Amino acid sequence: MSKAGEDEGVPAGQSPPPPLLEGSAAGAKALSKLSTVSSLPGWTKVSCPCCASEQVEPLVLVMLGEKVGPDTKRWLIKLIGTPKKDGGAGLLAHPGKDATGDIIMVSAQRCTLLRAAEELGLCRTYRSGDMEVFSYGDRDNFKDSGNMEAFLTSAERQFIVKNELDGLRAQKDLRVPGLPDNFTLRNRDNIWRKLESVGVIVNTFPLHNPNKLKNLGEAWYSGYQLIQPLDRVNEYFGSSVAFYFSFLDFYTWSLVPPAMMGLFIAYSSGDDQKEIPEAGSQVGEIQEDSGFVISGHMILAVFSMLWSTVVMEMWKRRSASLSYRWGTLNLAERFAEPRPGYRGELGTNPVTGRVEPLFPEWQRGLRMALVSVPVVGLFLGLVVLGMMCFYWGEARVQKLHTDWDSLLTQTLLYAPSVLHIVYTNMLATVYNTAVQSLTEYENHREESAHQNHLTAKVLVFTFFNYFAVLFHIAFFKRDVPLLRKRLASLLIVSQLVNQTTEIVIPYLVDRYVSSPNRNEKEDGSEEDKFRNQGMMPPFPGLFAEYIELLVQFGYLSLFSCVFPLTAVLLLLNNLTEIRSDAYKICKLFRKPFSPPVGDMGVWQIAFEVLSFVSVVSNCWLLVLSPRLQEKCRRGEMSSTDLLLGAVIVEHLLILVKVIIAALIPDEPNWIRKKKEQWEYKSMQALRQ
Amino acid sequence: MSKAGEDEGVPAGQSPPPPLLEGSAAGAKALSKLSTVSSLPGWTKVSCPCCASEQVEPLVLVMLGEKVGPDTKRWLIKLIGTPKKDGGAGLLAHPGKDATGDIIMVSAQRCTLLRAAEELGLCRTYRSGDMEVFSYGDRDNFKDSGNMEAFLTSAERQFIVKNELDGLRAQKDLRVPGLPDNFTLRNRDNIWRKLESVGVIVNTFPLHNPNKLKNLGEAWYSGYQLIQPLDRVNEYFGSSVAFYFSFLDFYTWSLVPPAMMGLFIAYSSGDDQKEIPEAGSQVGEIQEDSGFVISGHMILAVFSMLWSTVVMEMWKRRSASLSYRWGTLNLAERFAEPRPGYRGELGTNPVTGRVEPLFPEWQRGLRMALVSVPVVGLFLGLVVLGMMCFYWGEARVQKLHTDWDSLLTQTLLYAPSVLHIVYTNMLATVYNTAVQSLTEYENHREESAHQNHLTAKVLVFTFFNYFAVLFHIAFFKRDVPLLRKRLASLLIVSQLVNQTTEIVIPYLVDRYVSSPNRNEKEDGSEEDKFRNQGMMPPFPGLFAEYIELLVQFGYLSLFSCVFPLTAVLLLLNNLTEIRSDAYKICKLFRKPFSPPVGDMGVWQIAFEVLSFVSVVSNCWLLVLSPRLQEKCRRGEMSSTDLLLGAVIVEHLLILVKVIIAALIPDEPNWIRKKKEQWEYKSMQALRQ
Repeated sequence: MSKAGEDEGVPAGQSPPPPLLEGSAAGAKALSKLSTVSSLPGWTKVSCPCCASEQVEPLVLVMLGEKVGPDTKRWLIKLIGTPKKDGGAGLLAHPGKDATGDIIMVSAQRCTLLRAAEELGLCRTYRSGDMEVFSYGDRDNFKDSGNMEAFLTSAERQFIVKNELDGLRAQKDLRVPGLPDNFTLRNRDNIWRKLESVGVIVNTFPLHNPNKLKNLGEAWYSGYQLIQPLDRVNEYFGSSVAFYFSFLDFYTWSLVPPAMMGLFIAYSSGDDQKEIPEAGSQVGEIQEDSGFVISGHMILAVFSMLWSTVVMEMWKRRSASLSYRWGTLNLAERFAEPRPGYRGELGTNPVTGRVEPLFPEWQRGLRMALVSVPVVGLFLGLVVLGMMCFYWGEARVQKLHTDWDSLLTQTLLYAPSVLHIVYTNMLATVYNTAVQSLTEYENHREESAHQNHLTAKVLVFTFFNYFAVLFHIAFFKRDVPLLRKRLASLLIVSQLVNQTTEIVIPYLVDRYVSSPNRNEKEDGSEEDKFRNQGMMPPFPGLFAEYIELLVQFGYLSLFSCVFPLTAVLLLLNNLTEIRSDAYKICKLFRKPFSPPVGDMGVWQIAFEVLSFVSVVSNCWLLVLSPRLQEKCRRGEMSSTDLLLGAVIVEHLLILVKVIIAALIPDEPNWIRKKKEQWEYKSMQALRQ
Repeated sequence: MSKAGEDEGVPAGQSPPPPLLEGSAAGAKALSKLSTVSSLPGWTKVSCPCCASEQVEPLVLVMLGEKVGPDTKRWLIKLIGTPKKDGGAGLLAHPGKDATGDIIMVSAQRCTLLRAAEELGLCRTYRSGDMEVFSYGDRDNFKDSGNMEAFLTSAERQFIVKNELDGLRAQKDLRVPGLPDNFTLRNRDNIWRKLESVGVIVNTFPLHNPNKLKNLGEAWYSGYQLIQPLDRVNEYFGSSVAFYFSFLDFYTWSLVPPAMMGLFIAYSSGDDQKEIPEAGSQVGEIQEDSGFVISGHMILAVFSMLWSTVVMEMWKRRSASLSYRWGTLNLAERFAEPRPGYRGELGTNPVTGRVEPLFPEWQRGLRMALVSVPVVGLFLGLVVLGMMCFYWGEARVQKLHTDWDSLLTQTLLYAPSVLHIVYTNMLATVYNTAVQSLTEYENHREESAHQNHLTAKVLVFTFFNYFAVLFHIAFFKRDVPLLRKRLASLLIVSQLVNQTTEIVIPYLVDRYVSSPNRNEKEDGSEEDKFRNQGMMPPFPGLFAEYIELLVQFGYLSLFSCVFPLTAVLLLLNNLTEIRSDAYKICKLFRKPFSPPVGDMGVWQIAFEVLSFVSVVSNCWLLVLSPRLQEKCRRGEMSSTDLLLGAVIVEHLLILVKVIIAALIPDEPNWIRKKKEQWEYKSMQALRQ
């Protein structure tokens, strides 16, 4: 912060161009040091004396529109620097090289960060060495509470800055200097959203720390290390990213038992691979096998069903420990300010007593029941309709081809597939836009609830899209050989495609598209480098990564009994997946903002639901298993008895799964104790 | 309390016989007034000045063994009167008519009650009119905190007294005056338990308040009122009893829709009654019906399956409101002292910091998994074995009878049934003793956990006993007519038997056994009347009442589709059941101690589990329905398709039930808000 700063929060643009960015020219090391240690003037004045510090680290970069004049920029810098009680963001702002440039660097002083940490409900190491819920009043008893870089992770600091900027609201109707007269901010308008909508603010993103990033990358994906540096991922990218990688890690290791079992069964029977190419002559072949193949498959099926429950329960425990470790076990989002997009009548929150928009719960429920559910249902219906049209079209074209057999009809043979793919993609695009508005319309108070509802909607659709064909084959066509063929090809093809898109393309992009950028960086000033980060594509979020895992998990638990090598393929895939995902997030995208979270959110539920659906699907596949079907045909067993047996097995397995899930506590004992301690303490505190 | 009392907590036995019990002779009104307003000397000294009061109401009676000498009695009274910090119970004691009598009356001073209320985590009306968690430090802001009779219910006050007595522990090794030398209390021994085990204390029970009881009875069961005075039941008998009656009430009213539907279906088809007597010629008869009967049954079955989920979800909401109303929404049993029977190494509780016995969680888990579960399983196996022996014996005897046909064989025909009944009863007795020890062995820390585990064990067994035969008929014999006959007879017979045992016998007992007692009361002293209450049988607990409801609910949801009038019969039964249960608890038993509880405990879960099992059972009955079976036999429908259809319907229904259960929030919105407020407040308190 600037000891030789301005007098009254006057924007720094009026001071001479800060020397900060001119002194920097040397190698990467010196550069990165400067980017974190910028104890030079140019920053807005720190509003509270306790936060005086020798250094200000730029956390977030705000990119302004090209036509934004210096007046507007100065006003914005002043707004950012004004204390919160006066309607500002209580942050520190720096205008960059000169007052007319199109960037503002933002940082935060100690007080703002600490208060926000309390508001978020973060836990930190107490004097006693345990994690305790952070309290601003008791800050001196928390370890490192003087040194923000050790106390809060870089992701948390950046998230807090973003949160403060996003939460800025006009205190009264006002005009923004330098903007046309017809643009006014009304009382309680969200300033950031409104400025974004008119193009004053183009972009707000957290800044990378090249040095830290390089070290992290080396520990994460460069070598052959088996263990991911999860704590450092959490420090740099935040807990939501860290949870994804932790789960990926956990899930990959938990694939070892089913993979070994699958290998054993595949090799001891040794004919699974043979069967795939000769799908036509299957029944006869299986007849000649000893009973072993099928019973091996059955064991694998039962095993994988119970395995999935145990894995998810163990993950919950792991997730709770991680969340304790990262201080996000006790987040208080419910009691914080509502998310910026939340709309409603202004009123007093009955719980916190704060004045904020209120929106009745029942109205949200009604909107979900009467609008969201039907719309999502409609889209799912359209998927089914598309699939039916595809099958119908294919049958028609096939018939046409056998009847006429010309070059035209041969080309036509591809038409249904092409049309179906186009249709599906268009549908997905429309759907994704629709659910954005739907979730916005549902008006959730908390950001996490908003995200979870959005994710859930996309999830259902994507999942349906992925599995509709497989379910159709399994439940309507009842064609196990086709299912096996399809599953094998999906697994192999989708993995090849994924590996290509996730490793090869990123590599090429980095090499031929980013490199010129990077060269430019070497010479350019610090500020240019910051600006360059804005040129990278924004991080697309973890949805695609999670859904990939979910679909994998689905293949494995739903259909693995027809193709025992699934787990082996997935294990191999995931070992590279960890590296490619890590590489991607480090190198190819802008750094994402990442809110502190305590678990995987809706993904947890998705995996658990899938694990129960898998019982139904596996038991059905058991009924369809060629050997048992043949037995029925030969009259050795009535098909009713077979079905009855499968139903009984299914009910038993579900019962066992429910019992396993109930018996394995969701939290390790010591975390439960810890939570009880917190509860007891706050009870005691309330009594006094 | 005694203003002219003793000097230093010296037992009152040394004072002249208190005039309290001599002045009382007149009518019931005067009597009952005296029993609550006894501002006369004889009570131990109040240890704290703020509790000085004009009146002491005797709450609990302790009956001593016949051979207990005045020394022991004096010691005990002193112990009860000693403040808690000095190792006593901090209560008030009164020796009764004279120092040598075999009773001690116990009451409590204001401070003790208030502190205990805080410890229990009771909620009370705050100055603002809302319910708040009671805090001793803030007591002046709570309504009625000066008047214990308005502030705490009589059940709560009595429970607190019992809790204090039960919690008495020796502070050091000590001898009890008047007892043989070989009897010593070791340090931290539970005094009350030890004295009970050697017969010094025969009985500890809460005292009835005849006047209040009479008024309550008039409002509860004397007239034709449809609404139970639940708040007054809670006031007098405590929340666990009040929850039972609230549930009985709620459940009875919720029987109206299925009863109406059942009546409609039974009358519009009009042949259900006919079918029962003519079970043999059933199939032909049903053939001639239009499709309506069966589809009516199906509608009823689907309806009752969804109904049961909705009812249980609505009950949860009702239960939460009641618990808010009665101040038991936020009980803090986890943070209170462990229950008296809890054993373990003495250590510091990591949560509360109190010195108390500690017992590791995992060891309890191990005991449950390795001892309790196998033992319970063994007994369930014995039930099944008994049933198999019974069927086997019956078949053998039947055969013998047809072969030989003599008077001997005719008598022998009854042998299997008689033996089976004897066997089942003996098994039940042994089981009940066994689970007592098992649950004690599991060593639960909280009384409620102990009770829930005990109840769950008895519940499983009883339920199995009740339903084993019906399940056997439905799933193995697959004989719907027999099931219907059996169900109808069970419903009618068990209701007749219940009504007899619950109404007629109580009435007779009251008239011919209790009345002499009552006459004696009219003349006797207050003290004799108290002593007479001890002669009444102890209240057997609510297990029998709850299990009756559960079995009803089971008949209704599991098998109702074969006998549509079930709900009607149950509705009629329950309308009288409410009265007979109320009469029983008021008139025929000693008043029970009743801990404050926030819900029905394990019964809630039992009802919910049953409601899911009912889907499986109903869908299976659908498959067995004569019309569909006949269709299969005639080849109009393959039995595989039938089974498949039933399985699909079952899965859909379970899905719908899960969704309904998830969609209906377990607590009304305003209670959720209230809880969040409490949480927010305690979070704020902790931060300061």
